[in-house]
Amino acid sequence: MQETEISSLGEFGLIDRLTSDLTNSNPTTKKGVGDDAAVISLDDKTAMLVTTDMLVEGVHFDLTYVPLKHLGYKSAVVNFSDIFAMNGRPEQIVVSLGISSRFTVEHISELYSGIKLACQIYGVDLVGGDTTASHSGLVISVTCVGRAAVDDIIYRSGAGDSDLLCVSGDLGAAYMGLQLLEREKLASQGRPDFIPQFDGKEYIVERQLKPEARADIVRILSENGVRPTAMIDVSDGLSSELLHICTQSHCGCRIYEDKIPIDYQTAIMAEELNMNLVTAALNGGEDYELLFTVPLSDHDKVKNIKGIAVIGHTTKESLGCAMITRDNTEIPIRAQGWNHLA
Amino acid sequence: MQETEISSLGEFGLIDRLTSDLTNSNPTTKKGVGDDAAVISLDDKTAMLVTTDMLVEGVHFDLTYVPLKHLGYKSAVVNFSDIFAMNGRPEQIVVSLGISSRFTVEHISELYSGIKLACQIYGVDLVGGDTTASHSGLVISVTCVGRAAVDDIIYRSGAGDSDLLCVSGDLGAAYMGLQLLEREKLASQGRPDFIPQFDGKEYIVERQLKPEARADIVRILSENGVRPTAMIDVSDGLSSELLHICTQSHCGCRIYEDKIPIDYQTAIMAEELNMNLVTAALNGGEDYELLFTVPLSDHDKVKNIKGIAVIGHTTKESLGCAMITRDNTEIPIRAQGWNHLA
Repeated sequence: MQETEISSLGEFGLIDRLTSDLTNSNPTTKKGVGDDAAVISLDDKTAMLVTTDMLVEGVHFDLTYVPLKHLGYKSAVVNFSDIFAMNGRPEQIVVSLGISSRFTVEHISELYSGIKLACQIYGVDLVGGDTTASHSGLVISVTCVGRAAVDDIIYRSGAGDSDLLCVSGDLGAAYMGLQLLEREKLASQGRPDFIPQFDGKEYIVERQLKPEARADIVRILSENGVRPTAMIDVSDGLSSELLHICTQSHCGCRIYEDKIPIDYQTAIMAEELNMNLVTAALNGGEDYELLFTVPLSDHDKVKNIKGIAVIGHTTKESLGCAMITRDNTEIPIRAQGWNHLA
Repeated sequence: MQETEISSLGEFGLIDRLTSDLTNSNPTTKKGVGDDAAVISLDDKTAMLVTTDMLVEGVHFDLTYVPLKHLGYKSAVVNFSDIFAMNGRPEQIVVSLGISSRFTVEHISELYSGIKLACQIYGVDLVGGDTTASHSGLVISVTCVGRAAVDDIIYRSGAGDSDLLCVSGDLGAAYMGLQLLEREKLASQGRPDFIPQFDGKEYIVERQLKPEARADIVRILSENGVRPTAMIDVSDGLSSELLHICTQSHCGCRIYEDKIPIDYQTAIMAEELNMNLVTAALNGGEDYELLFTVPLSDHDKVKNIKGIAVIGHTTKESLGCAMITRDNTEIPIRAQGWNHLA
């Protein structure tokens, strides 16, 4: 048999390879692989949304500095985020755990307390799951079911070629939080009385350890009469998500470096670590903000909404995807998001 | 913090501990944790069923003798089985994979080809998933969504105290197939030209490697006008599933050793390996048959359906759960099903 290393394709290449020949046989399947969630029709007016995420110890999280309760919270919230990115409302989750022998009942209860807290805050019910042994560390697989009116669902594929590109919140903070946590971990090695230094950097640490899903943005857009044409959540990094929207909407884009929203703590951390700030914001991942497009005519509406930044616009497909830097240079956008399979 | 080993509770004890304080906040959540699938109402007449299973390399499967295509098939089918056990129809699945670096694109394509084959045969659509790295071996998490008329759904909790206990197919074959595969694996070690001996034992090997979900039984029962009062699929072993039905239905049971359906290949293998045949049938697991109860008045209907055995009856709760042996001794039934967390 021919042997192709998975790293040569990366996660999205592998998924394309595996799913390119899929056909759907159930009339209830409205959208399968390729968006933040699958869409299953319930009746003419309502659909169910289904999304799933797997978190693996040593790949997605390091229990040296991630508290189990935070991990539980995050593993639920990242799934809610995918449902909000379809403009839906998360309602139920099922949780499967693979647990290695070093974990006790108290450990797993801590993890669960975080999952339950997230469920309580977001109004979601934990309705099932599976619990099994694992030979190496903790594996968490969460599937979230949500609901939306069929006409409200927003796909990645709906952007026009002269829409505004908008993003909620700020970018790169979760990534810089991770860098800080990794630095303190390194510094603590062999020093049992070491106290990590997070003063003045609480925001970026929280963004990494306890992200929130932007239910509020979905609500505010609706209240302001803004209906995005395309939407996605920023989990793998802005570059990667921009390319998903542009590929599926058959358009190009121009974004402006000086419009990318970045928190000052993110900037200070990048400075301290001598890292490129814009690279962190473009490719960092785990921001769980919403990236969306709106018609040009909605400019006045969105520009006044706090917490939403207009970062550029879509273009005709032939123009490709690029960022305009502060010195007015156009550089192509490539997916350099976090690729754990590469 | 107090430390309680998970093995002291076992899988079901752990789940009870984690979920005993759960409350549901969505009116659409009709049944949460505690049955083969969660039940989410769509409208007055229809509900969605959601179930999930995680399979971990080295715990649930050994790739020395499990072909990846078979593994894919089985990981989908065990989820379909849970939906059939609620008297529903599986319609969609999402599949998450944790993949360690020794796997190639071709390996994962093989795995996927088995998942796709199962989907095709059972009329289910593969609509999404997640693909990630893993540090040790393969982890497969499948969530299946199904549909049923609200009035058709059969819970574990519906048995009366003088219902008939019925099981489809035969029991213990998958477990004896596993013993055979393990024996041949041991025999092959250090002998690269070894050819395993499966002659005359194809059935039990297939039951282990390529189980089917009993869509046919659900259909035949319906065609014969039989509506089970309680139902569960036999994944952890007959004993364990009997206790689930009796606990949730608040009844006891008596089953008869000589009524337990066992294939002759299962019996021959147990003989060869000097193992207790009835123990294998009671506690083996992975049969994916359906265990269900019907009213006494349905006796004439079920006794004539090929592939269904009446193995006993329910009783008042105070009488407990027991098996009547061939020599007329009553022995209590305890859950000795396959407990990978103990």
